Amino acid sequence: MDTRIIFHQSVDELKKALLRMGGLVEESISKAVESLSSLDEGLAREIVAKDDVIDELMLGVEESCLRLIALQQPMASDLRLIGMALKIATDLERIGDHAVDIAKITIRLSGEELIKPLEDIPRMALLVKNMLHESLLAFTEGDIHRAAALAEKDDEVDKLYSILMTEIIGLMSQDLIRNRQLSHLMFVAHYLERVADHATNIGEGVIYMVTGKRKDLNI
Amino acid sequence: MDTRIIFHQSVDELKKALLRMGGLVEESISKAVESLSSLDEGLAREIVAKDDVIDELMLGVEESCLRLIALQQPMASDLRLIGMALKIATDLERIGDHAVDIAKITIRLSGEELIKPLEDIPRMALLVKNMLHESLLAFTEGDIHRAAALAEKDDEVDKLYSILMTEIIGLMSQDLIRNRQLSHLMFVAHYLERVADHATNIGEGVIYMVTGKRKDLNI
Repeated sequence: MDTRIIFHQSVDELKKALLRMGGLVEESISKAVESLSSLDEGLAREIVAKDDVIDELMLGVEESCLRLIALQQPMASDLRLIGMALKIATDLERIGDHAVDIAKITIRLSGEELIKPLEDIPRMALLVKNMLHESLLAFTEGDIHRAAALAEKDDEVDKLYSILMTEIIGLMSQDLIRNRQLSHLMFVAHYLERVADHATNIGEGVIYMVTGKRKDLNI
Repeated sequence: MDTRIIFHQSVDELKKALLRMGGLVEESISKAVESLSSLDEGLAREIVAKDDVIDELMLGVEESCLRLIALQQPMASDLRLIGMALKIATDLERIGDHAVDIAKITIRLSGEELIKPLEDIPRMALLVKNMLHESLLAFTEGDIHRAAALAEKDDEVDKLYSILMTEIIGLMSQDLIRNRQLSHLMFVAHYLERVADHATNIGEGVIYMVTGKRKDLNI
Protein backbone atom coordinates (compact mmCIF):
# COMPACT_ATOMS: atom_id res chain seq x y z
CA MET A 1 0.00 0.00 0.00
CA ASP A 2 1.08 3.59 -0.64
CA THR A 3 3.07 4.90 2.33
CA ARG A 4 1.04 8.14 2.26
CA ILE A 5 -2.14 6.14 2.76
CA ILE A 6 -0.58 4.20 5.62
CA PHE A 7 0.60 7.46 7.14
CA HIS A 8 -2.85 9.05 6.91
CA GLN A 9 -4.50 6.00 8.42
CA SER A 10 -2.04 6.08 11.30
CA VAL A 11 -2.69 9.79 11.83
CA ASP A 12 -6.45 9.15 11.88
CA GLU A 13 -5.96 6.47 14.51
CA LEU A 14 -3.78 8.83 16.50
CA LYS A 15 -6.48 11.50 16.40
CA LYS A 16 -9.09 8.99 17.51
CA ALA A 17 -6.92 7.87 20.42
CA LEU A 18 -6.44 11.48 21.51
CA LEU A 19 -10.19 12.16 21.29
CA ARG A 20 -10.87 9.05 23.36
CA MET A 21 -8.29 10.17 25.91
CA GLY A 22 -9.80 13.67 25.85
CA GLY A 23 -13.29 12.27 26.47
CA LEU A 24 -12.08 10.38 29.52
CA VAL A 25 -10.25 13.42 30.84
CA GLU A 26 -13.30 15.68 30.36
CA GLU A 27 -15.37 13.16 32.26
CA SER A 28 -12.80 13.04 35.06
CA ILE A 29 -12.86 16.81 35.46
CA SER A 30 -16.68 16.89 35.57
CA LYS A 31 -16.91 14.04 38.02
CA ALA A 32 -14.14 15.44 40.22
CA VAL A 33 -16.01 18.72 40.68
CA GLU A 34 -19.28 16.83 41.11
CA SER A 35 -17.65 14.71 43.84
CA LEU A 36 -16.48 17.88 45.54
CA SER A 37 -19.89 19.59 45.36
CA SER A 38 -21.56 16.62 47.02
CA LEU A 39 -18.49 15.50 49.03
CA ASP A 40 -18.97 12.06 47.51
CA GLU A 41 -15.90 10.07 48.54
CA GLY A 42 -16.89 7.01 46.50
CA LEU A 43 -17.06 8.98 43.28
CA ALA A 44 -13.74 10.64 44.13
CA ARG A 45 -12.07 7.26 44.57
CA GLU A 46 -13.40 6.14 41.19
CA ILE A 47 -11.66 9.09 39.55
CA VAL A 48 -8.37 8.32 41.27
CA ALA A 49 -8.59 4.68 40.18
CA LYS A 50 -9.46 5.57 36.59
CA ASP A 51 -6.35 7.72 36.17
CA ASP A 52 -4.32 4.60 35.31
CA VAL A 53 -6.45 4.16 32.18
CA ILE A 54 -5.61 7.71 31.09
CA ASP A 55 -1.91 7.12 31.79
CA GLU A 56 -2.03 3.93 29.77
CA LEU A 57 -3.66 5.72 26.83
CA MET A 58 -0.96 8.37 27.01
CA LEU A 59 1.82 5.78 26.82
CA GLY A 60 0.07 4.22 23.83
CA VAL A 61 -0.19 7.56 22.02
CA GLU A 62 3.45 8.35 22.77
CA GLU A 63 4.63 5.03 21.44
CA SER A 64 2.52 5.39 18.28
CA CYS A 65 3.96 8.87 17.71
CA LEU A 66 7.59 7.83 18.15
CA ARG A 67 7.10 4.74 16.00
CA LEU A 68 5.33 6.75 13.30
CA ILE A 69 8.22 9.24 13.17
CA ALA A 70 10.84 6.49 13.10
CA LEU A 71 9.12 4.41 10.42
CA GLN A 72 7.64 7.06 8.15
CA GLN A 73 10.22 9.82 8.53
CA PRO A 74 7.64 12.55 8.07
CA MET A 75 8.83 16.05 7.25
CA ALA A 76 7.60 19.61 7.84
CA SER A 77 3.86 19.78 8.54
CA ASP A 78 3.48 16.03 9.14
CA LEU A 79 6.27 16.12 11.69
CA ARG A 80 4.64 19.13 13.35
CA LEU A 81 1.36 17.22 13.54
CA ILE A 82 2.94 14.26 15.30
CA GLY A 83 4.99 16.52 17.58
CA MET A 84 1.70 18.21 18.46
CA ALA A 85 -0.01 14.88 19.17
CA LEU A 86 2.83 14.08 21.59
CA LYS A 87 2.35 17.39 23.37
CA ILE A 88 -1.43 16.99 23.56
CA ALA A 89 -1.00 13.56 25.12
CA THR A 90 1.16 15.16 27.83
CA ASP A 91 -1.33 18.01 28.35
CA LEU A 92 -4.24 15.57 28.65
CA GLU A 93 -2.34 13.45 31.12
CA ARG A 94 -1.63 16.51 33.26
CA ILE A 95 -5.29 17.53 33.11
CA GLY A 96 -6.15 14.02 34.27
CA ASP A 97 -3.73 14.54 37.16
CA HIS A 98 -5.56 17.74 38.09
CA ALA A 99 -8.85 15.82 38.17
CA VAL A 100 -7.14 13.43 40.59
CA ASP A 101 -5.83 16.39 42.61
CA ILE A 102 -9.40 17.64 42.96
CA ALA A 103 -10.75 14.17 43.78
CA LYS A 104 -8.12 13.83 46.51
CA ILE A 105 -9.32 17.10 48.00
CA THR A 106 -12.86 15.64 48.06
CA ILE A 107 -11.49 12.64 49.96
CA ARG A 108 -9.75 14.92 52.46
CA LEU A 109 -12.88 17.00 53.02
CA SER A 110 -15.30 14.09 53.18
CA GLY A 111 -17.04 13.96 56.55
CA GLU A 112 -16.93 17.75 56.86
CA GLU A 113 -19.66 20.05 55.67
CA LEU A 114 -18.98 22.60 52.96
CA ILE A 115 -18.88 26.16 54.34
CA LYS A 116 -21.30 27.02 51.56
CA PRO A 117 -22.63 25.27 48.45
CA LEU A 118 -20.23 25.51 45.52
CA GLU A 119 -21.34 27.77 42.68
CA ASP A 120 -18.40 29.44 40.99
CA ILE A 121 -16.23 26.31 41.02
CA PRO A 122 -18.77 24.19 39.05
CA ARG A 123 -19.22 27.16 36.69
CA MET A 124 -15.46 27.36 36.17
CA ALA A 125 -15.35 23.58 35.60
CA LEU A 126 -17.97 23.86 32.84
CA LEU A 127 -15.97 26.59 31.12
CA VAL A 128 -12.69 24.70 31.22
CA LYS A 129 -14.33 21.47 30.10
CA ASN A 130 -15.70 23.32 27.11
CA MET A 131 -12.25 24.79 26.38
CA LEU A 132 -10.69 21.37 26.51
CA HIS A 133 -13.28 20.02 24.07
CA GLU A 134 -12.74 22.95 21.70
CA SER A 135 -8.95 22.57 21.84
CA LEU A 136 -9.17 18.94 20.76
CA LEU A 137 -11.58 19.76 17.94
CA ALA A 138 -9.23 22.55 16.83
CA PHE A 139 -6.49 19.93 16.64
CA THR A 140 -8.39 17.18 14.83
CA GLU A 141 -9.88 19.63 12.32
CA GLY A 142 -6.75 21.80 12.09
CA ASP A 143 -9.07 24.76 12.78
CA ILE A 144 -7.00 27.84 13.67
CA HIS A 145 -10.04 30.05 14.36
CA ARG A 146 -11.29 27.63 16.97
CA ALA A 147 -7.73 27.49 18.33
CA ALA A 148 -7.40 31.27 18.49
CA ALA A 149 -10.76 31.63 20.31
CA LEU A 150 -9.32 29.68 23.24
CA ALA A 151 -7.15 32.58 24.38
CA GLU A 152 -10.29 34.71 24.89
CA LYS A 153 -12.04 31.99 26.82
CA ASP A 154 -8.93 31.65 28.94
CA ASP A 155 -9.23 35.34 29.87
CA GLU A 156 -12.77 34.64 31.07
CA VAL A 157 -11.55 31.74 33.21
CA ASP A 158 -8.75 33.90 34.61
CA LYS A 159 -11.27 36.56 35.63
CA LEU A 160 -13.50 34.03 37.34
CA TYR A 161 -10.46 32.57 39.07
CA SER A 162 -9.40 35.94 40.37
CA ILE A 163 -12.91 36.68 41.72
CA LEU A 164 -13.00 33.29 43.40
CA MET A 165 -9.61 33.71 45.05
CA THR A 166 -10.53 37.10 46.46
CA GLU A 167 -13.77 35.65 47.80
CA ILE A 168 -12.03 32.68 49.43
CA ILE A 169 -9.33 34.85 51.00
CA GLY A 170 -12.10 37.07 52.41
CA LEU A 171 -13.72 34.07 54.08
CA MET A 172 -10.56 33.17 56.03
CA SER A 173 -10.73 33.60 59.79
CA GLN A 174 -9.07 32.39 62.97
CA ASP A 175 -10.81 29.03 62.56
CA LEU A 176 -8.28 26.35 61.53
CA ILE A 177 -10.80 23.82 60.19
CA ARG A 178 -12.49 26.49 58.14
CA ASN A 179 -9.18 27.79 56.79
CA ARG A 180 -8.08 24.29 55.90
CA GLN A 181 -11.21 23.78 53.80
CA LEU A 182 -10.88 27.20 52.19
CA SER A 183 -7.24 26.60 51.28
CA HIS A 184 -8.27 23.32 49.64
CA LEU A 185 -10.93 25.14 47.62
CA MET A 186 -8.29 27.67 46.63
CA PHE A 187 -6.27 24.86 45.11
CA VAL A 188 -9.32 23.44 43.33
CA ALA A 189 -9.79 26.82 41.64
CA HIS A 190 -6.08 26.81 40.81
CA TYR A 191 -6.22 23.35 39.23
CA LEU A 192 -9.18 24.34 37.07
CA GLU A 193 -7.34 27.44 35.99
CA ARG A 194 -4.38 25.25 35.02
CA VAL A 195 -6.67 23.02 32.96
CA ALA A 196 -7.71 26.11 31.00
CA ASP A 197 -4.02 26.91 30.48
CA HIS A 198 -3.42 23.45 29.08
CA ALA A 199 -6.33 23.88 26.65
CA THR A 200 -4.90 27.27 25.64
CA ASN A 201 -1.49 25.64 25.09
CA ILE A 202 -3.10 23.09 22.81
CA GLY A 203 -4.72 25.96 20.91
CA GLU A 204 -1.37 27.73 20.45
CA GLY A 205 0.19 24.47 19.34
CA VAL A 206 -2.53 23.96 16.73
CA ILE A 207 -1.84 27.40 15.28
CA TYR A 208 1.83 26.48 14.99
CA MET A 209 0.98 23.09 13.54
CA VAL A 210 -1.19 24.60 10.81
CA THR A 211 0.77 27.75 10.00
CA GLY A 212 4.33 26.75 10.94
CA LYS A 213 4.61 30.02 12.87
CA ARG A 214 4.77 30.51 16.61
CA LYS A 215 2.69 33.46 17.71
CA ASP A 216 3.24 33.01 21.42
CA LEU A 217 7.02 33.36 21.53
CA ASN A 218 9.29 36.27 20.66
CA ILE A 219 11.79 34.17 18.82
CA MET B 1 30.88 8.24 8.85
CA ASP B 2 29.27 5.31 10.66
CA THR B 3 25.64 6.10 11.46
CA ARG B 4 26.17 4.77 15.03
CA ILE B 5 28.89 7.36 15.57
CA ILE B 6 26.67 10.13 14.19
CA PHE B 7 23.86 8.93 16.43
CA HIS B 8 26.06 8.93 19.54
CA GLN B 9 27.39 12.39 18.76
CA SER B 10 23.83 13.67 18.37
CA VAL B 11 22.83 12.06 21.66
CA ASP B 12 25.81 13.68 23.40
CA GLU B 13 24.76 17.06 22.06
CA LEU B 14 21.21 16.42 23.19
CA LYS B 15 22.42 15.63 26.72
CA LYS B 16 24.55 18.77 26.77
CA ALA B 17 21.58 20.88 25.67
CA LEU B 18 19.42 19.38 28.42
CA LEU B 19 22.12 20.01 31.04
CA ARG B 20 22.42 23.61 29.86
CA MET B 21 18.66 24.00 30.04
CA GLY B 22 18.70 22.34 33.49
CA GLY B 23 21.39 24.75 34.71
CA LEU B 24 19.29 27.74 33.66
CA VAL B 25 16.18 26.31 35.28
CA GLU B 26 18.01 25.59 38.57
CA GLU B 27 19.27 29.15 38.56
CA SER B 28 15.75 30.46 37.94
CA ILE B 29 14.34 28.53 40.88
CA SER B 30 17.12 29.79 43.22
CA LYS B 31 16.77 33.36 42.09
CA ALA B 32 12.96 33.25 42.26
CA VAL B 33 13.03 32.24 45.91
CA GLU B 34 15.84 34.72 46.57
CA SER B 35 13.71 37.47 45.00
CA LEU B 36 10.83 36.46 47.23
CA SER B 37 12.90 36.41 50.42
CA SER B 38 14.14 39.94 49.79
CA LEU B 39 11.03 41.08 47.86
CA ASP B 40 13.39 42.17 45.09
CA GLU B 41 11.13 43.13 42.19
CA GLY B 42 14.04 43.78 39.80
CA LEU B 43 15.41 40.28 40.26
CA ALA B 44 11.91 38.85 39.82
CA ARG B 45 11.49 40.67 36.51
CA GLU B 46 14.82 39.28 35.31
CA ILE B 47 13.55 35.76 35.91
CA VAL B 48 10.33 36.42 34.01
CA ALA B 49 12.30 37.86 31.08
CA LYS B 50 14.75 34.96 31.02
CA ASP B 51 12.00 32.39 30.64
CA ASP B 52 11.99 32.96 26.87
CA VAL B 53 15.55 31.60 26.71
CA ILE B 54 14.42 28.42 28.46
CA ASP B 55 11.45 28.10 26.11
CA GLU B 56 13.74 28.55 23.13
CA LEU B 57 16.09 25.84 24.38
CA MET B 58 13.12 23.53 24.82
CA LEU B 59 12.01 24.05 21.22
CA GLY B 60 15.55 23.32 20.08
CA VAL B 61 15.72 20.09 22.06
CA GLU B 62 12.32 19.01 20.78
CA GLU B 63 13.27 19.63 17.18
CA SER B 64 16.56 17.75 17.59
CA CYS B 65 14.72 14.81 19.13
CA LEU B 66 12.09 14.58 16.40
CA ARG B 67 14.69 15.00 13.66
CA LEU B 68 16.95 12.38 15.25
CA ILE B 69 14.07 9.90 15.36
CA ALA B 70 13.04 10.64 11.78
CA LEU B 71 16.55 10.45 10.30
CA GLN B 72 18.13 7.68 12.34
CA GLN B 73 15.10 5.47 13.00
CA PRO B 74 16.43 4.33 16.37
CA MET B 75 14.88 1.26 17.97
CA ALA B 76 14.32 -0.03 21.54
CA SER B 77 16.66 1.58 24.08
CA ASP B 78 17.79 4.37 21.73
CA LEU B 79 14.18 5.31 21.05
CA ARG B 80 13.46 5.26 24.80
CA LEU B 81 16.42 7.58 25.36
CA ILE B 82 15.15 10.14 22.86
CA GLY B 83 11.59 9.82 24.11
CA MET B 84 12.97 10.52 27.58
CA ALA B 85 14.91 13.57 26.37
CA LEU B 86 11.63 14.91 24.95
CA LYS B 87 9.88 14.41 28.28
CA ILE B 88 12.73 15.99 30.25
CA ALA B 89 12.60 19.05 28.02
CA THR B 90 8.89 19.40 28.86
CA ASP B 91 9.52 18.88 32.59
CA LEU B 92 12.30 21.49 32.59
CA GLU B 93 10.12 23.97 30.77
CA ARG B 94 7.36 23.47 33.35
CA ILE B 95 9.84 23.94 36.18
CA GLY B 96 10.95 27.17 34.51
CA ASP B 97 7.28 28.20 34.46
CA HIS B 98 7.06 27.56 38.20
CA ALA B 99 10.10 29.82 38.75
CA VAL B 100 8.16 32.47 36.82
CA ASP B 101 5.05 31.77 38.91
CA ILE B 102 7.10 32.42 42.04
CA ALA B 103 8.75 35.54 40.56
CA LYS B 104 5.30 36.92 39.70
CA ILE B 105 4.29 36.45 43.33
CA THR B 106 7.36 38.49 44.34
CA ILE B 107 6.19 41.22 41.98
CA ARG B 108 2.70 41.16 43.50
CA LEU B 109 4.04 41.34 47.06
CA SER B 110 6.70 43.98 46.38
CA GLY B 111 6.05 47.09 48.44
CA GLU B 112 4.59 45.00 51.28
CA GLU B 113 6.58 43.62 54.17
CA LEU B 114 6.84 39.89 54.73
CA ILE B 115 4.83 38.76 57.77
CA LYS B 116 7.98 36.95 58.87
CA PRO B 117 11.36 36.15 57.28
CA LEU B 118 11.19 33.08 55.05
CA GLU B 119 12.96 30.01 56.38
CA ASP B 120 11.23 26.83 55.31
CA ILE B 121 10.59 28.02 51.76
CA PRO B 122 14.30 28.64 50.99
CA ARG B 123 15.08 25.30 52.63
CA MET B 124 12.52 23.59 50.43
CA ALA B 125 13.96 25.39 47.39
CA LEU B 126 17.44 24.02 48.15
CA LEU B 127 16.09 20.48 48.43
CA VAL B 128 14.18 20.65 45.14
CA LYS B 129 17.10 22.27 43.32
CA ASN B 130 19.27 19.41 44.46
CA MET B 131 16.66 16.88 43.30
CA LEU B 132 16.51 18.52 39.90
CA HIS B 133 20.30 18.35 39.58
CA GLU B 134 20.35 14.69 40.62
CA SER B 135 17.57 13.81 38.17
CA LEU B 136 19.52 15.24 35.25
CA LEU B 137 22.71 13.45 36.30
CA ALA B 138 20.71 10.22 36.60
CA PHE B 139 19.62 10.76 32.99
CA THR B 140 22.96 11.69 31.48
CA GLU B 141 24.77 8.84 33.27
CA GLY B 142 21.88 6.36 32.97
CA ASP B 143 22.25 5.87 36.75
CA ILE B 144 19.20 4.03 38.09
CA HIS B 145 20.35 4.20 41.74
CA ARG B 146 20.53 7.95 41.57
CA ALA B 147 17.13 7.89 39.87
CA ALA B 148 15.58 5.65 42.52
CA ALA B 149 16.91 7.85 45.37
CA LEU B 150 14.74 10.71 44.10
CA ALA B 151 11.53 9.12 45.37
CA GLU B 152 12.90 9.24 48.95
CA LYS B 153 13.95 12.84 48.61
CA ASP B 154 10.49 13.61 47.28
CA ASP B 155 9.00 12.19 50.50
CA GLU B 156 11.17 14.63 52.45
CA VAL B 157 9.92 17.53 50.33
CA ASP B 158 6.32 16.38 50.78
CA LYS B 159 6.77 16.36 54.56
CA LEU B 160 8.25 19.84 54.59
CA TYR B 161 5.41 21.00 52.31
CA SER B 162 2.78 19.61 54.64
CA ILE B 163 4.39 21.30 57.68
CA LEU B 164 4.55 24.58 55.81
CA MET B 165 0.92 24.46 54.70
CA THR B 166 -0.30 23.76 58.23
CA GLU B 167 1.79 26.66 59.51
CA ILE B 168 0.50 29.06 56.86
CA ILE B 169 -3.14 28.05 57.43
CA GLY B 170 -2.61 28.65 61.15
CA LEU B 171 -1.40 32.20 60.47
CA MET B 172 -4.60 33.16 58.63
CA SER B 173 -6.81 35.72 60.35
CA GLN B 174 -9.53 38.24 59.58
CA ASP B 175 -6.90 40.51 57.99
CA LEU B 176 -7.35 40.55 54.19
CA ILE B 177 -3.88 41.87 53.33
CA ARG B 178 -2.27 39.31 55.58
CA ASN B 179 -4.38 36.47 54.13
CA ARG B 180 -3.55 37.58 50.62
CA GLN B 181 0.17 37.33 51.34
CA LEU B 182 -0.23 34.00 53.11
CA SER B 183 -2.21 32.52 50.24
CA HIS B 184 0.56 33.60 47.86
CA LEU B 185 3.14 31.87 50.06
CA MET B 186 0.94 28.79 50.04
CA PHE B 187 1.22 28.71 46.26
CA VAL B 188 5.00 29.21 46.40
CA ALA B 189 5.25 26.11 48.57
CA HIS B 190 2.97 24.31 46.13
CA TYR B 191 5.11 25.27 43.12
CA LEU B 192 8.26 24.03 44.82
CA GLU B 193 6.54 20.79 45.67
CA ARG B 194 5.58 20.44 41.99
CA VAL B 195 9.22 20.99 40.98
CA ALA B 196 10.16 18.04 43.19
CA ASP B 197 7.45 15.99 41.45
CA HIS B 198 8.94 16.84 38.06
CA ALA B 199 12.37 15.72 39.25
CA THR B 200 10.83 12.50 40.56
CA ASN B 201 9.11 11.97 37.19
CA ILE B 202 12.46 12.34 35.46
CA GLY B 203 13.87 9.74 37.87
CA GLU B 204 11.06 7.27 37.06
CA GLY B 205 11.60 7.90 33.36
CA VAL B 206 15.31 7.16 33.68
CA ILE B 207 14.56 3.81 35.32
CA TYR B 208 12.27 2.97 32.39
CA MET B 209 14.84 4.21 29.89
CA VAL B 210 17.58 1.98 31.34
CA THR B 211 15.58 -1.12 32.24
CA GLY B 212 12.72 -0.97 29.74
CA LYS B 213 10.32 -1.60 32.66
CA ARG B 214 7.84 0.80 34.19
CA LYS B 215 7.81 0.49 37.96
CA ASP B 216 5.37 3.29 38.60
CA LEU B 217 2.40 1.94 36.65
CA ASN B 218 0.31 -1.18 37.11
CA ILE B 219 0.26 -2.05 33.45
